[in-house]
Amino acid sequence: MKVSVKVPATSANLGPGFDCLGLALPIYNEITVEETVMPGSGIEINIIENTNSYDILSVPKDKNNIAYKAIELLYNFIGQTASDIKITIKTGIPVARGLGSSASVIVGGLMAANKLLGNPADDAVLLSIASEVEGHPDNAAPAMFGGFCLASMEDDGSVVYSKIQWPENWKLTVIIPDYELDTKISRSVLPEKISLQDAAFNLRKCAMLVDAVYRQDAEQMKKCLKDKLHQPYREKFIKGFKELNSLLDNNEDILGCVISGSGPTILVISKNNAFEKVENDVNNLFESLNVSCDIKTLSVENEGTKVI
Amino acid sequence: MKVSVKVPATSANLGPGFDCLGLALPIYNEITVEETVMPGSGIEINIIENTNSYDILSVPKDKNNIAYKAIELLYNFIGQTASDIKITIKTGIPVARGLGSSASVIVGGLMAANKLLGNPADDAVLLSIASEVEGHPDNAAPAMFGGFCLASMEDDGSVVYSKIQWPENWKLTVIIPDYELDTKISRSVLPEKISLQDAAFNLRKCAMLVDAVYRQDAEQMKKCLKDKLHQPYREKFIKGFKELNSLLDNNEDILGCVISGSGPTILVISKNNAFEKVENDVNNLFESLNVSCDIKTLSVENEGTKVI
Repeated sequence: MKVSVKVPATSANLGPGFDCLGLALPIYNEITVEETVMPGSGIEINIIENTNSYDILSVPKDKNNIAYKAIELLYNFIGQTASDIKITIKTGIPVARGLGSSASVIVGGLMAANKLLGNPADDAVLLSIASEVEGHPDNAAPAMFGGFCLASMEDDGSVVYSKIQWPENWKLTVIIPDYELDTKISRSVLPEKISLQDAAFNLRKCAMLVDAVYRQDAEQMKKCLKDKLHQPYREKFIKGFKELNSLLDNNEDILGCVISGSGPTILVISKNNAFEKVENDVNNLFESLNVSCDIKTLSVENEGTKVI
Repeated sequence: MKVSVKVPATSANLGPGFDCLGLALPIYNEITVEETVMPGSGIEINIIENTNSYDILSVPKDKNNIAYKAIELLYNFIGQTASDIKITIKTGIPVARGLGSSASVIVGGLMAANKLLGNPADDAVLLSIASEVEGHPDNAAPAMFGGFCLASMEDDGSVVYSKIQWPENWKLTVIIPDYELDTKISRSVLPEKISLQDAAFNLRKCAMLVDAVYRQDAEQMKKCLKDKLHQPYREKFIKGFKELNSLLDNNEDILGCVISGSGPTILVISKNNAFEKVENDVNNLFESLNVSCDIKTLSVENEGTKVI
């Protein structure tokens, strides 16, 4: 028996929403989990690279594989031991680009294994396990449920989450450069302490952002997609980020230009078909900077993980 | 000619919403502004103390009066000079208790003077002036508009705000002790720097709180009325705060127990008529602690400032 699921990419740390706001994008990994025919045959992890994908040589193919780790926790949850399992990951989401590729394989592995086991765990348990493996819930929640999600990991390991309707005409232009950025490195540059002023800044922007999405208020949203907690420390790794922000600053149809996850992908949110001009501007800028990148404009992905 | 307005008390810094979340309470100051009959007679500030009110001897009655300061800025805005003005403040809101008494006289003075002048300034200008005088907008916004407000002061001095419908059955028990706490003192104990972890904590709680109010989700709200930015530093000034939090922790109808503004008033939010038990518990606790206090349970005030 085997189960295959399709899991969307995600863009976390959205604007001021460090570790709590994320949205799903229609770029997918497919994860298949099956019990191996021969008991005692152990773990087998296969990775099939799509033509559109990137270098995935660094992905572990043993017990250190994060999908396997998550599946192991699910087996533990039901009092069993994961032993003879084959995981196949067909990658469509570029690795180490700030697009939630790790969350997608964690969530995909978990949800496929859960179905294989007869659905012993509910969404809350699955999200909690996925967030534990990932370290934060803002990729895992939109990867599971699609759309724009708020998520908060509680002290007891549970995750409170909510999905809010993302406005149809707020388009997402993702600029995926051809270089990787290890999440560990981009985490390591974050300071341990920040000013109370910066914390209060992100706080009010985050509250107003949630409100702006509820009310589909683009004018308010434009004032909210700002951050002082992680972007100022990471932007040195993100080629073209500062220049692009200046370039887009005067375009009234641009709602924001932010780092996706911990980068290096940049996300530009715009309305009224401004994405055509955005794509053009980005193309020119990145050519002048000599940075190769893949540029695509997407609508938010609303389905989340689906069995295929 | 004279104009009188009625302005509600407010509870700012609500839970995780340091400097950005506040709500209005049905306790009022009445502010009357009039042009004095004799030109050149200068400023006159009268304060009428209500029987239910507290010591207001410390309120300045000259150009340092905050209502006058705000009115002066309004006159400046329209290119005039405030000169011969009489301000009468009939106080119902206790002073220096974390209930927005200063915001109420600022907002009241401004809105009365604006009407007196033929409404030259719109709400955005008035809120911006009030927040400038106050230093933050989370009292001024609910004082003006009533209800539960988010407010964010921008770099250019403008204020982005939004009012969200507060659930009818979420009641507010205010515990107003008989001692004052100067906002300057309670601001002075806040650290300049805090951990990124604490900032991220408040961030996610604040986002989830806004969402919980939109969805009227009491279970989620219970997880959100927490704070690591100001309460841990101020609770030493707030007699009974820690004890009350422990006492209420196991009551499932209590949504939260927070410091109102910068204290010393404590605000308990509850549902399903749990306020009766809250009032009883508070009474017993504060008696045992030998702290006199005024306890009342209120619904949110939804009107904001009104001409009377």
